Amino acid sequence: MAGDPRFQPVDAAVVPRFADVATFLRTKRHEVHSDVDIGLVGVPFDLGVNYRTGARQGPAGVREASRLIRKVHPTLGTRPFDTCNVADLGDAPVNPLDKVASIDLIQKFFEELRENAITPISIGGDHTIPTPILRGLVKDGPVGILQIDSHPDTLPELCGDTLNHATFMRLGLDEGWIDPKRVVQLGLRGSRFGDDIQYGLDQGFTVITIDDYEELGRAETIKRIHGALGDQPFYLTLDIDGVDPAYCPGTAVPEIGGLIPRDLQVIIRSLAGKPIIGADISEIAPCFDPTGITCVTAANLMFEMLCAIAEGRR
Amino acid sequence: MAGDPRFQPVDAAVVPRFADVATFLRTKRHEVHSDVDIGLVGVPFDLGVNYRTGARQGPAGVREASRLIRKVHPTLGTRPFDTCNVADLGDAPVNPLDKVASIDLIQKFFEELRENAITPISIGGDHTIPTPILRGLVKDGPVGILQIDSHPDTLPELCGDTLNHATFMRLGLDEGWIDPKRVVQLGLRGSRFGDDIQYGLDQGFTVITIDDYEELGRAETIKRIHGALGDQPFYLTLDIDGVDPAYCPGTAVPEIGGLIPRDLQVIIRSLAGKPIIGADISEIAPCFDPTGITCVTAANLMFEMLCAIAEGRR
Amino acid sequence: MAGDPRFQPVDAAVVPRFADVATFLRTKRHEVHSDVDIGLVGVPFDLGVNYRTGARQGPAGVREASRLIRKVHPTLGTRPFDTCNVADLGDAPVNPLDKVASIDLIQKFFEELRENAITPISIGGDHTIPTPILRGLVKDGPVGILQIDSHPDTLPELCGDTLNHATFMRLGLDEGWIDPKRVVQLGLRGSRFGDDIQYGLDQGFTVITIDDYEELGRAETIKRIHGALGDQPFYLTLDIDGVDPAYCPGTAVPEIGGLIPRDLQVIIRSLAGKPIIGADISEIAPCFDPTGITCVTAANLMFEMLCAIAEGRR
Amino acid sequence: MAGDPRFQPVDAAVVPRFADVATFLRTKRHEVHSDVDIGLVGVPFDLGVNYRTGARQGPAGVREASRLIRKVHPTLGTRPFDTCNVADLGDAPVNPLDKVASIDLIQKFFEELRENAITPISIGGDHTIPTPILRGLVKDGPVGILQIDSHPDTLPELCGDTLNHATFMRLGLDEGWIDPKRVVQLGLRGSRFGDDIQYGLDQGFTVITIDDYEELGRAETIKRIHGALGDQPFYLTLDIDGVDPAYCPGTAVPEIGGLIPRDLQVIIRSLAGKPIIGADISEIAPCFDPTGITCVTAANLMFEMLCAIAEGRR
Amino acid sequence: MAGDPRFQPVDAAVVPRFADVATFLRTKRHEVHSDVDIGLVGVPFDLGVNYRTGARQGPAGVREASRLIRKVHPTLGTRPFDTCNVADLGDAPVNPLDKVASIDLIQKFFEELRENAITPISIGGDHTIPTPILRGLVKDGPVGILQIDSHPDTLPELCGDTLNHATFMRLGLDEGWIDPKRVVQLGLRGSRFGDDIQYGLDQGFTVITIDDYEELGRAETIKRIHGALGDQPFYLTLDIDGVDPAYCPGTAVPEIGGLIPRDLQVIIRSLAGKPIIGADISEIAPCFDPTGITCVTAANLMFEMLCAIAEGRR
Amino acid sequence: MAGDPRFQPVDAAVVPRFADVATFLRTKRHEVHSDVDIGLVGVPFDLGVNYRTGARQGPAGVREASRLIRKVHPTLGTRPFDTCNVADLGDAPVNPLDKVASIDLIQKFFEELRENAITPISIGGDHTIPTPILRGLVKDGPVGILQIDSHPDTLPELCGDTLNHATFMRLGLDEGWIDPKRVVQLGLRGSRFGDDIQYGLDQGFTVITIDDYEELGRAETIKRIHGALGDQPFYLTLDIDGVDPAYCPGTAVPEIGGLIPRDLQVIIRSLAGKPIIGADISEIAPCFDPTGITCVTAANLMFEMLCAIAEGRR
Repeated sequence: MAGDPRFQPVDAAVVPRFADVATFLRTKRHEVHSDVDIGLVGVPFDLGVNYRTGARQGPAGVREASRLIRKVHPTLGTRPFDTCNVADLGDAPVNPLDKVASIDLIQKFFEELRENAITPISIGGDHTIPTPILRGLVKDGPVGILQIDSHPDTLPELCGDTLNHATFMRLGLDEGWIDPKRVVQLGLRGSRFGDDIQYGLDQGFTVITIDDYEELGRAETIKRIHGALGDQPFYLTLDIDGVDPAYCPGTAVPEIGGLIPRDLQVIIRSLAGKPIIGADISEIAPCFDPTGITCVTAANLMFEMLCAIAEGRR
Repeated sequence: MAGDPRFQPVDAAVVPRFADVATFLRTKRHEVHSDVDIGLVGVPFDLGVNYRTGARQGPAGVREASRLIRKVHPTLGTRPFDTCNVADLGDAPVNPLDKVASIDLIQKFFEELRENAITPISIGGDHTIPTPILRGLVKDGPVGILQIDSHPDTLPELCGDTLNHATFMRLGLDEGWIDPKRVVQLGLRGSRFGDDIQYGLDQGFTVITIDDYEELGRAETIKRIHGALGDQPFYLTLDIDGVDPAYCPGTAVPEIGGLIPRDLQVIIRSLAGKPIIGADISEIAPCFDPTGITCVTAANLMFEMLCAIAEGRR
Repeated sequence: MAGDPRFQPVDAAVVPRFADVATFLRTKRHEVHSDVDIGLVGVPFDLGVNYRTGARQGPAGVREASRLIRKVHPTLGTRPFDTCNVADLGDAPVNPLDKVASIDLIQKFFEELRENAITPISIGGDHTIPTPILRGLVKDGPVGILQIDSHPDTLPELCGDTLNHATFMRLGLDEGWIDPKRVVQLGLRGSRFGDDIQYGLDQGFTVITIDDYEELGRAETIKRIHGALGDQPFYLTLDIDGVDPAYCPGTAVPEIGGLIPRDLQVIIRSLAGKPIIGADISEIAPCFDPTGITCVTAANLMFEMLCAIAEGRR
Repeated sequence: MAGDPRFQPVDAAVVPRFADVATFLRTKRHEVHSDVDIGLVGVPFDLGVNYRTGARQGPAGVREASRLIRKVHPTLGTRPFDTCNVADLGDAPVNPLDKVASIDLIQKFFEELRENAITPISIGGDHTIPTPILRGLVKDGPVGILQIDSHPDTLPELCGDTLNHATFMRLGLDEGWIDPKRVVQLGLRGSRFGDDIQYGLDQGFTVITIDDYEELGRAETIKRIHGALGDQPFYLTLDIDGVDPAYCPGTAVPEIGGLIPRDLQVIIRSLAGKPIIGADISEIAPCFDPTGITCVTAANLMFEMLCAIAEGRR
Repeated sequence: MAGDPRFQPVDAAVVPRFADVATFLRTKRHEVHSDVDIGLVGVPFDLGVNYRTGARQGPAGVREASRLIRKVHPTLGTRPFDTCNVADLGDAPVNPLDKVASIDLIQKFFEELRENAITPISIGGDHTIPTPILRGLVKDGPVGILQIDSHPDTLPELCGDTLNHATFMRLGLDEGWIDPKRVVQLGLRGSRFGDDIQYGLDQGFTVITIDDYEELGRAETIKRIHGALGDQPFYLTLDIDGVDPAYCPGTAVPEIGGLIPRDLQVIIRSLAGKPIIGADISEIAPCFDPTGITCVTAANLMFEMLCAIAEGRR
Repeated sequence: MAGDPRFQPVDAAVVPRFADVATFLRTKRHEVHSDVDIGLVGVPFDLGVNYRTGARQGPAGVREASRLIRKVHPTLGTRPFDTCNVADLGDAPVNPLDKVASIDLIQKFFEELRENAITPISIGGDHTIPTPILRGLVKDGPVGILQIDSHPDTLPELCGDTLNHATFMRLGLDEGWIDPKRVVQLGLRGSRFGDDIQYGLDQGFTVITIDDYEELGRAETIKRIHGALGDQPFYLTLDIDGVDPAYCPGTAVPEIGGLIPRDLQVIIRSLAGKPIIGADISEIAPCFDPTGITCVTAANLMFEMLCAIAEGRR
């Protein structure tokens, strides 16, 4: 199956990077099918935010920006398209006028991926989407979570609503698809509603705020991440506002003083070969990204995720 | 009450236009109160759209842009702040995570305005907002509507949803707050789902597409508008996408080949003194307005509406 | 073949407009095939310009902007997807490092379209592209041309080069694929190198400068266009700089005082049912289009072209 | 002296339009010298405004945008560089920290131009600049003025200050360099401080508001302009906010519903051969012009002014 | 007085962040009053610059951006609104046409704050504003200064002018409101006019250039800052160009290679509880900030300043 | 010759930074002449790229941005204009329609510089330009290269073409103007076509990827650079995509996780006094740089290069 021509990205020597329809990482657009190993998926849902919207255009923005990604990882040497069948599976279905219906539609889509043994890498959408994704993916007991984010997303509710971009970590515990002992929250910072972080600590989360990160350094942080996640399956979720807004201004709730893409590249690379059940990058809002660098960053980090997952599926 | 100092806009000779907190037309921010004659209101709701969001920031964008509006109408000579108490009443309450709850909150806010005999001029928000506004304002039988728009907003549903930015005209008929014989739809154009216009014609609407407008000319159009609306109360709703996108690019669903602001200035002026029960400008999305001209246009047209209404309340 | 489900655009009630891969007018991406009646094609070539580049991203920009186009023409009532098989055929091949090779590749692609009896509507690319397009399409004697443009594109050379965005009309005469008696040039204006227009007049072109257009009016202009083109096959080429830069700022060489999209909508509509052998919109440079209205305008005019051609192929 | 090679613009066939240092209309940068007939001058002064600044970058923005202007007028056929010595004379001196000193410096610069019999075409700078320009240029009795603007600029003071961008017309009368019987104000509109226009009418100005313009039409307007200005020397001043902000968003105080560039092209052309003693385009603020069309419009209108003046100096 | 409801910021659970009038940190807009402990103030003055203006819109930009700030400090745990009465006091009065008059007006405003024992946090305005602020605030002998900046602002004059954005540190010494032994200048860098730094060193300033900062590290820098400032009152002034332009592009004179917001967050936090008599953030020019991150950074650093000062006033 | 007034930059105290024609570092525009020591040159060529163009406008963008550079180096104390004759020599000639002809024209221009003993600092243009520059400059045996870049530019061909922005390092070896033992490649990173780096290693290049750089640290990196280059002549080429795209978004092929300007400042400073035969900064595309920081960064690094070279020519 390796090198299956149906799943080779478009060759830039034949079709230049600026040409033709934009897909994730220039892979081919396929329907869900069991021949696919790794599915690149958009989740254009942004009805779960209480400040600025715009993440529904995230998948479109990242598809366009990912035109410039090549085929080989610079450090790992991974050639994901040689060892896995990778495809752009389009966008999960949503109903732009119905939050609840959309959550269900998204969940069903990811159930279908699970049934086909496809590992998804999703581009959001706001950070509500891990809830339907994990409801769909997790059927055999709770999983670990590596959450890179500036906000802990553990609120019980926002404006009286319990399923939105600030609550998925609490929902995951309540609904049983997150194993709190195998959760790492990295990059937390920014002015708070109250003591937003304590809840996670009480559950047993490994919390690495930006202050902690600075003190620990990246190498030690990676050790703690590996230690907490162990060898069991986990999910990787990256809220792009975990990245410093100089690097990723195109997001709903920018928080200064954050992680830089280099840090994330190295951290994600360190996960290569681990049992990652899926990954997402959320909260990319192209309408606040006039320089385009948020989408470019997301496209590159999507490739990092792909290589890390491909190493594990080999 | 004329010239009540509580309701005078900030004096630009004392506080320069770029200075201090931005309010609509530099009026003072008041709570709802029966001393107010005309209330300038934001309705930051954009959960009713099926393409691009961003209109929730419309009120903020128009407040900022309206810094440059002065006190006297150039053609009518109207000095609205000398004859009416005009105030920025803040924004109608909304719940950014709950479409249905928001609709109810908005309706209640406008009921309160009606109870205080305040004529509202609203800045949306998407074009769902006439529904809760008119549910709140209209209690004594149906009213006329002057709708300036590129889309007729008479669909029965969108994605299975019946209360959104494409349905308010049909809802108004079904719920009885619109008098179909006194409806004018001006500026309709753009590719269609089907025969979107026929429904209104069947109800007795006066429909003036952009083709019709070009053929009739502005003077004859104004005659028809006046003829259809008669002397009874009516509501004025302006979807900013009724304006050509060269003039108003900052909107969710731009449609080329539209009306120009000059046309709207003259048409709105022609309504001065008429029994206008309220007005709105909707679908202003500042995140798609890098030149700022959409918000500047809305601010100017808000002043036109203010003068037209002030002439009627004199 | 009418209503062939393979050729229906994506249904916005199922896949929202902001979702999934962007194609021209949300049609499906097909390879060249004789079942296709009308092919929507990108020609991402911009090596033929002497001022600003950027038109190579035109197809990507218009695909993204065309998400908002619906299925029915507002005036003609045309439902092109019901009567014709319409597809996004991707982009013509180009070599970004070789102007001459690209011209040949493009020509061969359009030859293939001709062999499959596909009528192409192309999005450039700079205004060099009519040369390889028409070399590919025209095999049975010269055709008429309706050129909407601010520049006549009749120079013998530019910087010593004879095949670029300023020369295609002269090449067409020299190479015999343009019938000079059936050429209309509409919208010419702007400061000139010399007497750029005389050459065309000498050949028998019908030249309608912007001064002429203002004097004639649109209705009379349409008559002259029809008169000159007659009932024989012709090609429609629209350099987006023919449109006023307030409406289409995203182009290489903006010229003020131009046609407005409304004019072009009506003019293109008037061609419905005529023997149009193909059409293009060129010189769209998204990198100079921060408001997005240039791409939105092109997407809408592409739909106008589609309807006009579909009426002819019915 | 005709065709003096020292005064030929850079040849685009040798130095492409995007190349080398940007000057006005690609003319050569010269110091003030009596060999120059027509001087293109920047006046980077914006200390006279009470809302938004940014016009100090106007000259830089227009130099860059004027790279695309060619050598021959499309309608008049004028070849200004063949009949006049035209040069970029750099910018008038200003002191960015001292309004009063700057006014004096600018005046002296224009006195020097007058002494060298150079006709200036200036790019502002805010609309304070006609005061020092005309103080410098006018020594032999008052001149006529054609002012294209949305504001009459006849206030006695602004914030207690008498020399700023809202007062030059009144200063000109008080100081005797304007002949009120030979003043035309064209394009006035926008919300007002009070009855800003009456003052000019009382002095004998010909005032053509945008309402008047629409009623008169362009041809009749041109007649009135010619009638009022007569055959005596006059100065042409264009506040770019006279143009509709869809066409020229990059300005301090945009006013919707304005003139379009096409109107100005035809009006300025109509002045060809008249005794124009100088001209300016003011209030261009590149920092509010992300699409660049304001600067492009100014560059083109500068060329119109050049041709009109060159016809008169022939 | 703690928790006085008059001084609580708007509750985001009731009024969403995007809604209603924008104030600094969503505090209420109050007039100057002795019940206020900490006043958030705009100083929209930019007549003191010799390159690009635009900082007059700084207060408006930061008010809008500060919509996203919450109530609790993430590291200190400070809840400033629980322990202090914090209000948006509007903007200091200025005359946009008179630099000298503005300086006096600003000084008087800050004298009034001092008389009411209000500690101000100001958003400029250009970096001239510490002069009138400190003239107004300092009455009991010179104070220390922590200046974060890329430029030392110790020039004797600029273009012959002695009171502008490059001179306040020298003025402070000459006029006696700065104690040179308690001055720290942090972040100096960029090409220079001459030896701009020596003057401060000669006066006894603690100068920490960006080279020094890199060598010392942040912890040692903080020690030096604390050492130099001691326990006596000092003022904190932050020229936003002290921050690297990747993080804060929206400023008049960007200098590459600067401090990052994370550094400033930690440094400002270290000052919590110190006798800070006031603070400002200057040189924010929204017109050069299309991504909005400069204003977001300023809003966040304003909150840091607020928490540091609130700890001291407790 | 020191302090020759013909070669002094414009004095900002007389001509403000925003005023007059923009030249590199505000030096005077001269033709090539043997009195010039260091020539600042634009090379507006971008026909050698396979993704996004726009670098032809790089020289214009950097000239404009370099208005803010002053005369003295902050760390070295270098006053380059006191010890060297520095001039803006305009742009190397190019033919925008002919890649091969342009390469030859550029080469001849640099040959002329060499003949006049002028050391050039060039602003590209895409990263093809080192080929014609070095063909022109190198006549006495191969030179060393310090290449700061994210890509190694050692491909044998791109789309079948051997002379483009991805091949100059291989061409330099093949043609003999690069000494492979004295090559340093710094900053390499990003997804790859294959093992792009091995070729250089095989030739003896010193390759410092971003991973290596992080591990070595800046000081050790500088040692290796100095060690590899030795005391013999070398050329410095900076592809701006070597810089992290948060700092320099305005480029064709941004690669996240890069060097920051501070690093480059210190590295370039370390070369002061070394035998640098020329330098360039390439791949600056102003059309993707809405914040302007890419051009500002390039202007500052150009000044660093100038000071480093001036120290060597003293």
